[in-house]
Amino acid sequence: MEDKTEFKFYNEDNWADKPIPATLDSEYETKAWGFKKPGEKFAPITIARGKPGDYDVKVDMRYCGICFTDVCVASNQLGGTMYPVVPGHELMGVVEEVGSKVTKVKVGDNVGIGCLCDACMKCNSCKRGDEQYCEVGGWGHIYNSNKIYDTMPGNKDVQTFGGYSGSHCVNEHFIMKVPEGMPMEKAAPILCAGVTMYDPLRHWGATKGNKMCIGIIGIGGLGTMGIKIAKALGHRVVAISTSASKEAMAKEKGADAFVVSTDEASMAKEAKTCDIILNSVSFPHQVQHYMSLLNNSGTIVQIGIFTDEHKLNQAPMIFGRHSVAASLIGGIESTEECLALCAKHNILPDTVTVTANQLD
Amino acid sequence: MEDKTEFKFYNEDNWADKPIPATLDSEYETKAWGFKKPGEKFAPITIARGKPGDYDVKVDMRYCGICFTDVCVASNQLGGTMYPVVPGHELMGVVEEVGSKVTKVKVGDNVGIGCLCDACMKCNSCKRGDEQYCEVGGWGHIYNSNKIYDTMPGNKDVQTFGGYSGSHCVNEHFIMKVPEGMPMEKAAPILCAGVTMYDPLRHWGATKGNKMCIGIIGIGGLGTMGIKIAKALGHRVVAISTSASKEAMAKEKGADAFVVSTDEASMAKEAKTCDIILNSVSFPHQVQHYMSLLNNSGTIVQIGIFTDEHKLNQAPMIFGRHSVAASLIGGIESTEECLALCAKHNILPDTVTVTANQLD
Repeated sequence: MEDKTEFKFYNEDNWADKPIPATLDSEYETKAWGFKKPGEKFAPITIARGKPGDYDVKVDMRYCGICFTDVCVASNQLGGTMYPVVPGHELMGVVEEVGSKVTKVKVGDNVGIGCLCDACMKCNSCKRGDEQYCEVGGWGHIYNSNKIYDTMPGNKDVQTFGGYSGSHCVNEHFIMKVPEGMPMEKAAPILCAGVTMYDPLRHWGATKGNKMCIGIIGIGGLGTMGIKIAKALGHRVVAISTSASKEAMAKEKGADAFVVSTDEASMAKEAKTCDIILNSVSFPHQVQHYMSLLNNSGTIVQIGIFTDEHKLNQAPMIFGRHSVAASLIGGIESTEECLALCAKHNILPDTVTVTANQLD
Repeated sequence: MEDKTEFKFYNEDNWADKPIPATLDSEYETKAWGFKKPGEKFAPITIARGKPGDYDVKVDMRYCGICFTDVCVASNQLGGTMYPVVPGHELMGVVEEVGSKVTKVKVGDNVGIGCLCDACMKCNSCKRGDEQYCEVGGWGHIYNSNKIYDTMPGNKDVQTFGGYSGSHCVNEHFIMKVPEGMPMEKAAPILCAGVTMYDPLRHWGATKGNKMCIGIIGIGGLGTMGIKIAKALGHRVVAISTSASKEAMAKEKGADAFVVSTDEASMAKEAKTCDIILNSVSFPHQVQHYMSLLNNSGTIVQIGIFTDEHKLNQAPMIFGRHSVAASLIGGIESTEECLALCAKHNILPDTVTVTANQLD
């Protein structure tokens, strides 16, 4: 057995100390919740944000999702966290103020902001709505990111701060209207988990009204959203898990079939059925284990940020025209489509609402 | 150094002895060239083929390509060869006789037959023209294959024999007209190497008139066809090889750029440029080495029958929406499109014509 007594949740190396400078005239101050150093407690801090320019929208924050990557970045698990860090990338709020040239939303609108807040808007990826693959200098994340282009208002030398705060202010391009009647306190994870599952279905041709068979590996936050979305799109859905105990939940969320991936007989029952498999697993695994579930011309899409190597044999792939692909969240247009689909089919993530002082 | 003094080109294990039974009334005899056992000389033998039924076409053989897989199967390198074996899967000939219900060709037409001669014609893959991925019982190869469906005329208990023979007889579905003016002695490899490179371009969206950047790894028989085809489709073409000495040839075939894949600076020049890479390499390599050449949303397609494992890290793939895919030859419709494209652009494989008795 590995000795885990030395395990630290946070990473002591490779983080940056970026003290918050004095607030500029072009900025306003707002309360936020964040971490000053790795290993410290989640606590209130004061940050500055840019006042809205001509194309910017200031949003009075109401709710913000808590995603596992918030925990990872806050604790510097992936390295590269700039402290202080204010996490939160599934923002829901009400428009408080708009710049003079904003046309997308108006004061009082319920809106969301996701991971994306900054991109060149000129490269081929941005032009086709894939801002998350911006080719010029990468894209800016709503927190723990440098301000790369001229998109974000405020001090260019300060890192971005996320949604655990009183308000936020971004360019209207990155603001998404929350569909009428959608409860903001439930919908926030659609901006991350939702679009992370929706966008690969969109990219690999499963949102055009055609009927496919979609496999979903990992029945957690991403997986249950994937089941609901794939089902709403009219597909047959195969839920896949190492744990037989997830079957009832997967079926309750809409899965037509359930595969225990550690059980050969269970795997054999769905052999060669899945046109697309969304693999949300982010712990060590071998993608090849799941390839037998792919239909001819099928694609397995890896979603998890996971850095171990997969051992892949191309010979069996050739005889089924199989692909192993990977996908990262989704662009703004894709997220808006996902919100609309979820509103139409009353799809909401399974959430529990807490206040900031209940977290540590 | 590995001791190679014991190396045998042929595989002594895992082959089947299937002596040719007496010729049936429904069959005719024809001369062929083949191998009676692994390790024996290429020599004339007499085989029987089915007389054409209502939907069959008998082809007087004129030319047949020699592909590396012919050598591999003839010498049982992959195992599973049924002896005697008559190789040859790039057949060119003239229609000698047609069944009463044949509409696709007439006596005197120049025609080709490729790898495919047998498929269910009813499954989803067959219906969309992907007979090479037939889902029912697999597809039948023009040689060294059992007769799986009722497609192939002749004794159902005898394996198929390939193109190194006086004539062949198959269902009209698997017969392709050679475009007018195309020289049969040059065109045969289009039926294998040509479509092997064309079909993945077709499947991954590069035959619709859009302009892409196509990478071709391995500048041999497949690679040079890939360069010519991708160029004829209007794409920018990047030829990629471990060997700098291939540059002149690659450019003469139409490549716009040349990358020496063992040279970091050369690789860096074409970083993130290729929308599709066709990788024809069938010796040990790591696909990940080439991923830096992929543009966002790019796909690298593995073509070679190669059974070593690739070590693949999904994390960098996620940030570019990259795919590693694999592809096997192409269906009949795709091969017909490839022939038409080659005829239109005067694309011909680089061949040398020999007679059977020059081979051993």
